[in-house]
Amino acid sequence: MAKTNPGRFFEDYTVGEVIAHAVPRTVAEGERALYHALYPARHALYSSDVFAQACGLDGSPLDDLAAFHVVFGKTVPDISLNAVANLGYAEGRFLRPVWPGDTLRSVSEVIGLKQNSNGKTGVVWVRTTGLNQEDEPVLSYVRWVMVRKNDLHAPAPETVVPTLKPALDAADLVLPEGLDFSGYDFVQAGESHRWGDYVPGEIIDHVDGVTLQEAEHMLATRLWQNTSKVHFDTTVRPDGRLLVYGGHIISLARTLSFNGLANAQMIVGLNAGMHANPAFAGDTVRAWTEILDKAETDAPGVGALRLRLVAVKSGAEPGKLRGDDGKYLPDVLLDLDYWALMPM
Amino acid sequence: MAKTNPGRFFEDYTVGEVIAHAVPRTVAEGERALYHALYPARHALYSSDVFAQACGLDGSPLDDLAAFHVVFGKTVPDISLNAVANLGYAEGRFLRPVWPGDTLRSVSEVIGLKQNSNGKTGVVWVRTTGLNQEDEPVLSYVRWVMVRKNDLHAPAPETVVPTLKPALDAADLVLPEGLDFSGYDFVQAGESHRWGDYVPGEIIDHVDGVTLQEAEHMLATRLWQNTSKVHFDTTVRPDGRLLVYGGHIISLARTLSFNGLANAQMIVGLNAGMHANPAFAGDTVRAWTEILDKAETDAPGVGALRLRLVAVKSGAEPGKLRGDDGKYLPDVLLDLDYWALMPM
Amino acid sequence: MAKTNPGRFFEDYTVGEVIAHAVPRTVAEGERALYHALYPARHALYSSDVFAQACGLDGSPLDDLAAFHVVFGKTVPDISLNAVANLGYAEGRFLRPVWPGDTLRSVSEVIGLKQNSNGKTGVVWVRTTGLNQEDEPVLSYVRWVMVRKNDLHAPAPETVVPTLKPALDAADLVLPEGLDFSGYDFVQAGESHRWGDYVPGEIIDHVDGVTLQEAEHMLATRLWQNTSKVHFDTTVRPDGRLLVYGGHIISLARTLSFNGLANAQMIVGLNAGMHANPAFAGDTVRAWTEILDKAETDAPGVGALRLRLVAVKSGAEPGKLRGDDGKYLPDVLLDLDYWALMPM
Repeated sequence: MAKTNPGRFFEDYTVGEVIAHAVPRTVAEGERALYHALYPARHALYSSDVFAQACGLDGSPLDDLAAFHVVFGKTVPDISLNAVANLGYAEGRFLRPVWPGDTLRSVSEVIGLKQNSNGKTGVVWVRTTGLNQEDEPVLSYVRWVMVRKNDLHAPAPETVVPTLKPALDAADLVLPEGLDFSGYDFVQAGESHRWGDYVPGEIIDHVDGVTLQEAEHMLATRLWQNTSKVHFDTTVRPDGRLLVYGGHIISLARTLSFNGLANAQMIVGLNAGMHANPAFAGDTVRAWTEILDKAETDAPGVGALRLRLVAVKSGAEPGKLRGDDGKYLPDVLLDLDYWALMPM
Repeated sequence: MAKTNPGRFFEDYTVGEVIAHAVPRTVAEGERALYHALYPARHALYSSDVFAQACGLDGSPLDDLAAFHVVFGKTVPDISLNAVANLGYAEGRFLRPVWPGDTLRSVSEVIGLKQNSNGKTGVVWVRTTGLNQEDEPVLSYVRWVMVRKNDLHAPAPETVVPTLKPALDAADLVLPEGLDFSGYDFVQAGESHRWGDYVPGEIIDHVDGVTLQEAEHMLATRLWQNTSKVHFDTTVRPDGRLLVYGGHIISLARTLSFNGLANAQMIVGLNAGMHANPAFAGDTVRAWTEILDKAETDAPGVGALRLRLVAVKSGAEPGKLRGDDGKYLPDVLLDLDYWALMPM
Repeated sequence: MAKTNPGRFFEDYTVGEVIAHAVPRTVAEGERALYHALYPARHALYSSDVFAQACGLDGSPLDDLAAFHVVFGKTVPDISLNAVANLGYAEGRFLRPVWPGDTLRSVSEVIGLKQNSNGKTGVVWVRTTGLNQEDEPVLSYVRWVMVRKNDLHAPAPETVVPTLKPALDAADLVLPEGLDFSGYDFVQAGESHRWGDYVPGEIIDHVDGVTLQEAEHMLATRLWQNTSKVHFDTTVRPDGRLLVYGGHIISLARTLSFNGLANAQMIVGLNAGMHANPAFAGDTVRAWTEILDKAETDAPGVGALRLRLVAVKSGAEPGKLRGDDGKYLPDVLLDLDYWALMPM
């Protein structure tokens, strides 16, 4: 029997099953420096220990999305090695900061299964949790993917479609212990706009762009131990191109959004996410944000903003998401709905 | 009103104004490792804590030029986002080593303004200081840039041109506390040439070359949080090329100069600097040095050398800087005049 | 006299001579993170401090091959700057883990010399040892290279060909102090196959591939302070291509071998190694392993496997190493014979 991992197929999943994903990972100063090399990351709370301490934390945590990528990367060999498509995210909650020196592992529970009518593929829903070395959850999210069947004669499982919140309520958000924006330094953070300055419906064009480079997306994706072949091996796709990891676009868009949202310091919730179109080296990525909602929190001086972050290819018009047919426009790469924390 | 930073235009500066630049940054082991990945850095004092301790320091500081890039990068959104040209550097002094774990911020004072006769641009002089978490200055330098006017009807400011030293005197140099080269290990440092072996007028061809790669200069420039669009976004220039950050060429030339100047361990002064021609991916960069001056210092066994470091494209003749017309030759990329410390 | 290093030529070596190589290096968290960005590294013992501690160690050491590259890189300016070919490795032993914060230096003893019959080149054998800041050896290996003569009239040295073991015996292997696999966590490690599941003669196709990128192999090679010009300067070779450092292929093949050998955690011996054909950016690298031998060890739960790791270009047939003429097939990049430790 082959000793290599063939990945799981649709018929290999059972609702209620818990999968412990392999290869725990210790993250430290090196991952932090690399995140700043790979993305135009400038949010002060993750750039400066001194700034983070002035916000009531022990120091800068690992960037929220870096933590997400580490947890996500571990799931690839078990969840998406034979995936045809990454269909969505929901109920993503950041539960605890990841500190330098922490060791992360991931577990997923299968919470839904639905075979497609073609009999060749099916949709698998999993709730994945990242845990630190104290077995404390640091983040959790639901993800669903379309996976191929290997044995087309395998019987269809009972259909279970989980009920998922279209978006987290502000009350669902977990704030880092001790967070306090009452003495927030807007000058050092880079912008003067505070929570009260943002209005639902407002669109912000983040202006800046980054042209994707093959080596950069590969380094980033590999750093998170994501093993999906399409990102590394040009012989996989008929066109000989490497598909850029969707998470690379998420981090790129988020860091580009500094310009206009410099004070949206921490990500605490991922309501929904869609990789609308594939991205390739040579594409120049830009981003725009729509303010969706606002909420107060219990932490001193801390407000929450619900934001739609959209990554597009250069040339796309900010604010335009879908065509008349209701489908994403071809220049849209990412549609991400998240909650961030901001000084009031 | 747009929430993004449009950058400042010429009419937005006032002599005497002090600008606190945003986004403090904690630097640590990760930045050190990346500097060794991005540049052929081999100066022993920055490579080995043990070597640095034998030279009287607590350990290896962050490379002097990495510290410079971090301080410089913060100034870009306020000083050079709308710059037409980076005109020069002067009076650069390294005042204190940057240690792993230090958090740096930057402030600039506007010390000169001169509108150009075309009425469309002007020159802005700033003195920038990098400070650590104890508010101690770690380095300072003067830089002047040509900046566009946004409102061509804005009145010209009173012309103030600062008086700048053509070069620092040896007495202006600040030596790191405790530095002692009296037990210097020339074998571990890589070359036997000491201060006394170098003669003003001597030209050293550093022989080695590095071919610029798009991903490498982008990673380096991003690591220092330099946000200048021309380095990252291929849609900015009509020719679709990315301009390589001038500081990338400085670090490349300095590290290439190890071969022949392995014992020029620390940079303590930047007398002048000019980015003579632009560099692009695919160019192969070489370097040569002219010994300009020598001085003794008060530190045990430590001498100072004033050096002209020139980066050129492959094929250029070492020692040739300007044509008969007095202009830089087209293959010259960088002309940098600096003071370094060397064992006597 | 030129101050730059011209490298040594064949006539510059004497049997018995000991060369202390320059530029000691402190390695820490940053090198660890970069190793994970540059290679698809997933062996749990190097990824997670917690996993390493459960195996009886103080934490994750630096990856064995990263330690090898650091030690090897220092030898390049003295051994292989004028090398025509890297001919082989033997008797490589890993003697002690390298911990974050360790400072490494390298020394080599010339143990063999043989001028070639053409009178223009000769073979130099050196035994290189890497030492930490306590002067404890961390690894040693024999390497032989073909080096050009500079002075063709220099007399041929007495021929000395060292007697080298074709492979280390299991008894020659040094196990890290405290190593204990009796409580090994196969789920977190990523595969269930243990020492008893592997059979000499078995071939494992590691399936995955990575397409080489110029920036990636340059970053990796530079990180180890390897100064060989062919890896960085496109003007060196007539075809304008950069030769990929052979060690990059070793690390790539080893990390690709995770898929099928996830539990071959630590490398303790390098029996032999050959860079069969050059690799260039654009090549897609795959790997296969042949199980050569097995041995028990004194450490609790720890077995040793002797493995032939072969890196090939995409399209090569797993298990095929040489043609009918006995020569390596053109798609074979690396043939590496090593000992690894695995849970029993």
